[in-house]
Amino acid sequence: MSDTGVTVKKSQDFSAWYVEVVLKAGLADYAPVKGCMIIREDAYAVWEKIQEILNRKIKATGHRSVYFPMFIPEGLLTKEAEHFAGFTPEVAWITQGGDTQLEEKLAVRPTSETIMYATFSKWIRSWRDLPLKINQWCNIVRWETKATRLFLRTREFLWQEGHTAHATSEEAEAEVMYALNEYKDLMENYLAIPVLVGTKSESEKFAGALYTTALESIMPDGKALQMGTSHNLGQNFGKVFDVKFVGEDKQDHYVWQTSWGITTRLIGAMVMVHGDDKGLIMPPKVAPVQVVIVPIPYKGAEPAAIAAKAKEIAETLKAQGVSVILDDREEYTPGWKFNQWELKGVPIRIEIGPRDLKQGQVVMVRRDTCQKAPVKEPDIPATVEKLLVEIQDNMFAKAKAILLDRITAVQSYDQFKKFLEEKGGFLKAAWCGSADCEAKVKDETGATIRVIPFQKEEPTSNCIVCGQKAKETAYFARSY
Amino acid sequence: MSDTGVTVKKSQDFSAWYVEVVLKAGLADYAPVKGCMIIREDAYAVWEKIQEILNRKIKATGHRSVYFPMFIPEGLLTKEAEHFAGFTPEVAWITQGGDTQLEEKLAVRPTSETIMYATFSKWIRSWRDLPLKINQWCNIVRWETKATRLFLRTREFLWQEGHTAHATSEEAEAEVMYALNEYKDLMENYLAIPVLVGTKSESEKFAGALYTTALESIMPDGKALQMGTSHNLGQNFGKVFDVKFVGEDKQDHYVWQTSWGITTRLIGAMVMVHGDDKGLIMPPKVAPVQVVIVPIPYKGAEPAAIAAKAKEIAETLKAQGVSVILDDREEYTPGWKFNQWELKGVPIRIEIGPRDLKQGQVVMVRRDTCQKAPVKEPDIPATVEKLLVEIQDNMFAKAKAILLDRITAVQSYDQFKKFLEEKGGFLKAAWCGSADCEAKVKDETGATIRVIPFQKEEPTSNCIVCGQKAKETAYFARSY
Repeated sequence: MSDTGVTVKKSQDFSAWYVEVVLKAGLADYAPVKGCMIIREDAYAVWEKIQEILNRKIKATGHRSVYFPMFIPEGLLTKEAEHFAGFTPEVAWITQGGDTQLEEKLAVRPTSETIMYATFSKWIRSWRDLPLKINQWCNIVRWETKATRLFLRTREFLWQEGHTAHATSEEAEAEVMYALNEYKDLMENYLAIPVLVGTKSESEKFAGALYTTALESIMPDGKALQMGTSHNLGQNFGKVFDVKFVGEDKQDHYVWQTSWGITTRLIGAMVMVHGDDKGLIMPPKVAPVQVVIVPIPYKGAEPAAIAAKAKEIAETLKAQGVSVILDDREEYTPGWKFNQWELKGVPIRIEIGPRDLKQGQVVMVRRDTCQKAPVKEPDIPATVEKLLVEIQDNMFAKAKAILLDRITAVQSYDQFKKFLEEKGGFLKAAWCGSADCEAKVKDETGATIRVIPFQKEEPTSNCIVCGQKAKETAYFARSY
Repeated sequence: MSDTGVTVKKSQDFSAWYVEVVLKAGLADYAPVKGCMIIREDAYAVWEKIQEILNRKIKATGHRSVYFPMFIPEGLLTKEAEHFAGFTPEVAWITQGGDTQLEEKLAVRPTSETIMYATFSKWIRSWRDLPLKINQWCNIVRWETKATRLFLRTREFLWQEGHTAHATSEEAEAEVMYALNEYKDLMENYLAIPVLVGTKSESEKFAGALYTTALESIMPDGKALQMGTSHNLGQNFGKVFDVKFVGEDKQDHYVWQTSWGITTRLIGAMVMVHGDDKGLIMPPKVAPVQVVIVPIPYKGAEPAAIAAKAKEIAETLKAQGVSVILDDREEYTPGWKFNQWELKGVPIRIEIGPRDLKQGQVVMVRRDTCQKAPVKEPDIPATVEKLLVEIQDNMFAKAKAILLDRITAVQSYDQFKKFLEEKGGFLKAAWCGSADCEAKVKDETGATIRVIPFQKEEPTSNCIVCGQKAKETAYFARSY
């Protein structure tokens, strides 16, 4: 059993617990190349679910997938100065192809604005070509120098990037909010992770954007995690890359653009938010396996009849659209299997032994609460369906309560520092709006403004840093 | 209409026709980075269909998707000498991350055997861990120095790579054939492209494999195109990367491995095989749009009623699971729309004008044969369903007839050279099995052995090159 048990408690050493669970549950592995990771079967299956969910949403609203080259010539990447300055410290460069030194080195995409928009100017001629709404699922490289954290910080990761061009500023603004809301739905209603939404401050916005909106959640160690962003690029890139269209008014106009993305770090968030001392807990809606059936064949006690019944139940549930595994491997004990599937976070376990068979029932165990209950055979399909919903809802409710508990309103910088140390989480504080005050907080405490909520909250004090009149209430936190 | 019409005839200048169709139909575009391409909306939609079809097949047989790093340390790539020798001339190298020169340069994966198998040795300990069957959809880089051909030869492309490890040689052999057969089904029954299957000669096999099996088709210019490969890697990589397991016999054994792949070049094949002077013809089973409805509103002739009817038909077909576009854009004429959707290869066009409305019918046009026929309104759903099947079947039958016509049995080297020049296609010829004869043919004619059929065909002459006793019948061709 030693290879399936988690040895560190989540409450004891969160960071070690995370790594152990990710590795032992088989979500990821370290790779034989520094700073990179292997996304393993169950994690990739969650990523496929995320793709399926988001594709369904955005395709219904006319976004279509494409694939642009991964290589960006240096001259193109440097074209938008602010953008380049933001990304250049972490770009990986191709300098050699075969035996030949390249004349111009090529960046491996840290994001695709520049390579895409250089082409948008070819594709967009008239108002008839707008809006242009494209999406890309691909790998991204950012040459991190800090230590790797599986899913959260690796030199290569997978992501989704939406890019749109519109005729008007209003349409672009609506698109930014559209993407943000679809992300919120994905995170809250599928991954069961509650998020705060709002805008980033000037110093935290995407390099080259007019403004950035973001979704932020809180992890069990009190640190915030940026879950996704949606940028209004205004006409900045349009002007640099000459993306113009002839309007219905016969005049030339620059397009208004947006870009938005989520990454495989969402899988890490899911592990951190929901997992427990036994391992993962998978939200039913994205779980690669929703139900595992473990037959418990005692010697001499009709193993064939138990196996047949287990199979029958598996088929019934599959026909119902439930993702089921019947674990009838003979080389492992039931106890070992219980541990393994708990580690992997399967939402429901169904046990069936000789007594159950006799009584026409099974034992059903919820992964989230560990509650165990007998269920009569005819009630199995309905009970599974009900439980999957209940588990999903319960996981979100629990995470939401924690998020709310981890938002603390503070009235002074002293309070700010005290709560940051003692409790972590989000600190709601009045801010004058100056980058200097923001920078001071960051330098002295490591906390940054994570979001400024869309629904402005009236400041309840002067700026906690400079004591001047506050402009708004911002949410600060230390973050990943 | 100039922007939707194809100006070159397929029979006149095949190569120019191909490029024009791919660009104008919006399948792909050149990118602002040399040797690379942009895969546009409709082409990517076909790729998504291919993913869906293949995923469904291989997941049902226990293969699961993963994601390994794109970067391979030089020391790892060079470990299997034959493999490295095969790939090193076309590897792109990362030498710089941020401002730092890397100590060891990193290859951008030209294929993933080395990076994966270095890890397999960690994952595989006992017979219980076998078979290991994983799959990866990702981007691949091979630094081609020849001119780019959209979809067929670019420095970056997308592919799928299956990698499996087994306890026995027999299982690995079965897996090689399993993958090959699933590929054949995909190509023939979905993309409507007939293929020849067989093994590659020693000189054409995958670098590091025991043997390579392949699927080959013929393009309208008489050149063969390799559509996919499935390799038996034997224990070669297992020994180099120390992938061992303890068997049920308690002894250590090296695993037996396979790898197999298809790429986005399949999209290029689809264009070449099926397209005509009007543009693409999409096989219904992978067409992003299966039916386009074009209302033809004459002035004063109830445009609202026509629009309403067109919408009603669109909804009915959608409910039936057909992928439909209702092209009711007012800024384009019906004639312009006909051209555009023909260019894009939509299998069925439905026209509805004032007379049709009055007579309770529509006009249905098949893209493959250009046949036009009135269809009574109640018959539309059934007719569409029937036509989609007929078009799919007709496209395959037509391509199959061409393939068969392009296989020529030759009895001498003179005949070989004559038919290669005059007719192209596959030349079936007796071969003694020596690499020298094979090399001589390649040097002198540019043709290579594409496959040696599984079902051995009795040689009908001595080796056409050396005149010695022939060992087998091989299929030669010039190729992409």
